[in-house]
Amino acid sequence: MTNHRRNIRICGTGVAVPEQVLTSDEIDRRFGLPAGTVFKRYGVRTRHRTVHENSASLAVAACEAALAQADLSWSDIDCLVSASATMDQALPYNAALILAARGGDAKRITAFDMGASCLSFLVGLDTLSYLVESGRYRNVLIVSADIATFSLDWSTLGESAIFGDGAAAAVIRKAAPGESSSILASRIETYPEGAEYCHIKAGGSRYHPRRLSSSIDPLALFHMDGPRLFKTVSREMPRFVNDLLGGAALTLDQLRLVVPHQASRLALDHLAKRLRVDAARTVDILADFGNQVAASLPSALHHAIKGGRVQRGDPIMLIGSGAGLTIGGMVMVY
Amino acid sequence: MTNHRRNIRICGTGVAVPEQVLTSDEIDRRFGLPAGTVFKRYGVRTRHRTVHENSASLAVAACEAALAQADLSWSDIDCLVSASATMDQALPYNAALILAARGGDAKRITAFDMGASCLSFLVGLDTLSYLVESGRYRNVLIVSADIATFSLDWSTLGESAIFGDGAAAAVIRKAAPGESSSILASRIETYPEGAEYCHIKAGGSRYHPRRLSSSIDPLALFHMDGPRLFKTVSREMPRFVNDLLGGAALTLDQLRLVVPHQASRLALDHLAKRLRVDAARTVDILADFGNQVAASLPSALHHAIKGGRVQRGDPIMLIGSGAGLTIGGMVMVY
Repeated sequence: MTNHRRNIRICGTGVAVPEQVLTSDEIDRRFGLPAGTVFKRYGVRTRHRTVHENSASLAVAACEAALAQADLSWSDIDCLVSASATMDQALPYNAALILAARGGDAKRITAFDMGASCLSFLVGLDTLSYLVESGRYRNVLIVSADIATFSLDWSTLGESAIFGDGAAAAVIRKAAPGESSSILASRIETYPEGAEYCHIKAGGSRYHPRRLSSSIDPLALFHMDGPRLFKTVSREMPRFVNDLLGGAALTLDQLRLVVPHQASRLALDHLAKRLRVDAARTVDILADFGNQVAASLPSALHHAIKGGRVQRGDPIMLIGSGAGLTIGGMVMVY
Repeated sequence: MTNHRRNIRICGTGVAVPEQVLTSDEIDRRFGLPAGTVFKRYGVRTRHRTVHENSASLAVAACEAALAQADLSWSDIDCLVSASATMDQALPYNAALILAARGGDAKRITAFDMGASCLSFLVGLDTLSYLVESGRYRNVLIVSADIATFSLDWSTLGESAIFGDGAAAAVIRKAAPGESSSILASRIETYPEGAEYCHIKAGGSRYHPRRLSSSIDPLALFHMDGPRLFKTVSREMPRFVNDLLGGAALTLDQLRLVVPHQASRLALDHLAKRLRVDAARTVDILADFGNQVAASLPSALHHAIKGGRVQRGDPIMLIGSGAGLTIGGMVMVY
C-alpha cells in the first residue's frame, strides 16, 4: 500500500459528555464490593452515563465546541461525517439526525456516516483527508458520538465497569502553504476471524425482532471475548506499528505523543509496554471517561491538545483496535 | 463546490437477491383485493423477500458476481466498503461481517461502512473514487445489501407493497491511460428538515429496548411521509440536476442513460417527467424488484450494463433521493 502524505490540518476539536457521572464507588456498592475495587480492577474511576441525551444531541455539542476552537461556524462546513460505532436510530443515518438536532437554517451540505466500530473516527479522518486535499470539501466536520451504556450487562461486573458515553469532533481543512500539518501515513486492517470477539447481535436485520421467537433484550447486550481479542491484537500490533511507521519514515522515538484508543486498562498498559512508550508520551483518559467507543480516540486527542501536550508541528500517532476485529493507526503532524 | 474529474472505472458489477419471491398477486390475496390491484397501484409485480438469508450472505454473493465480471478475485481487493442503509447487527460493522461471511484465508484488507440511507452506494462510490485515483487503494469493492422486508408494516397496504430485499456490488479501479471511464461530477445534499419523513425509530440508542417501557416492535417499523418527501424532492430536484450537469459540463440530452434510485412508481414517473427523459433513456427495474433501498441504485446500474444499455464511453447519470432527506447524483463516463 502506498501511503500518500496529505496536507490537511485539524483546526479544531471538541468533546461533549452526558450530564450524569457514574462513579466506580457506586458500582462497588451495587455489587457489594469494598470501595476502590472496580477502579483497582478496571482502571476507570468515573464515566458519563446517558439519561436524557441522545447521540445526536451529544454530537451537536461536540461539533459546536470544535467549531468554536477552529473559529468557524456551521456555515463554513461543507461536509459532516458521523463516524460512530453505534446508530442513533435505524433510519435515517446518524449524520442526518445530527443536522436535524442542530436545527437552525439549513445550508445544503453533504452528510453521511462512516463506521468501523471503535475506529470509526480514524477511518473518517483518513478517508476524508483525500477529499479535503483535493478541494472537494473545504471544511469537514467529523464527529463520533456513542451511547454504549444501554448495551451493557449490568447484572455482572465486566464491560459494565469499562464503558462510558460521549462525543468528540474535529474540523479538518487543507493545510495552508507553510503549515506543516499533514497526515504522513495511515493503515486500517480488518481481521474477519475476530468478527465474533466483540458483538451486539441485535439492532439490525439478522436478529430483527420479527425473526425472533423470544425477547430481543439479551441480544441487545454487548459481548466481548477479551482474551481472544487481546491475543490477536498482541500478535499483530508490533508488525502493524512497524509498517505504519515505515510508511511515515519515522521511528517511535521521533513521535511527540501516542494517542491510543482508550480500550481498557489492560490494552493501554500492554500497548505502552509493547511499544516501549512511557506515560509521558501517551495519552490516558481512561480513568475519567472509560472507553467511549468511537468517541474515545478523538476525545483523547482533544484532551492532549487542550492540555498543551501537542503543539503545531509535532508528529503524533493515533492507534487502536476495535470490533471487526480491526486495527488502525495514523501518523500525523499536528 | 469544485467538482474534480476522477479517472476511475467501474470494472465489474453484480447483484444477489434472496431466494423467495413474493408476488403482488399474493399481496392482493392477503388484503382481499382483486388480482392486479397492487401492481396497478404500486408498479411492483414481484420482489424478493428474505427468509433464511442475511445481509452479509447476500453481500458476499453480489461481491463475487462483481469480481467475476471484473475478472478479479478477492485477493485483488484492498478495500471493502459496505454501503448499506441498514445494519446487519449493531456490532461489529457490516463490512467486517461480510468479510467473516466470505470466510477463507484472511488477507488483511481495509474494510468499513459508509451510509446515507438509500444513497449509500452513491456516497461510497463518490468518496472512494478519490482514494482510488490517488493510488491509496487499487481495487475497491463497494457493496450495498439491504433487508428491508422485516421492517415493513404488513397490516396495511403501503410501503409493504413497494420494498424488496437485495444486494448489489461494484468494483472500481483507476482508469488506465486511454480509457475514458471517469466520474465527471457528483453532488450529495442533505435536507435535515426532512429527517422525519422516512424513519425507523428503533435499532439504535435513542429508542433502545432499555429506555422503553413498552414493546420495541412498533418502533421497528418503517414509516414514510410520502407527500412531504415528494414535495421537497420535487422542489429541489430540477435545480439539483441543473447544478450537477453544470459541474459535468454536459446537458441532459448528451446523457446516454439516467439510472435512478428505484424509489417508487410515483418517484420514477415524476423524475422522468421533470427531466423530460423518456423510457428509452431511463432504467426501470421497479416492477421486478421493488425498492431495494441502498441496493436499488447499483442494481439498476448492473441491469443496465448487463442488458447492453450502457457501453464503455457512454456518459450516464446516477440520481436519487432517500431518507435523510438526501438528494444525490453523479455524472460519469462508463
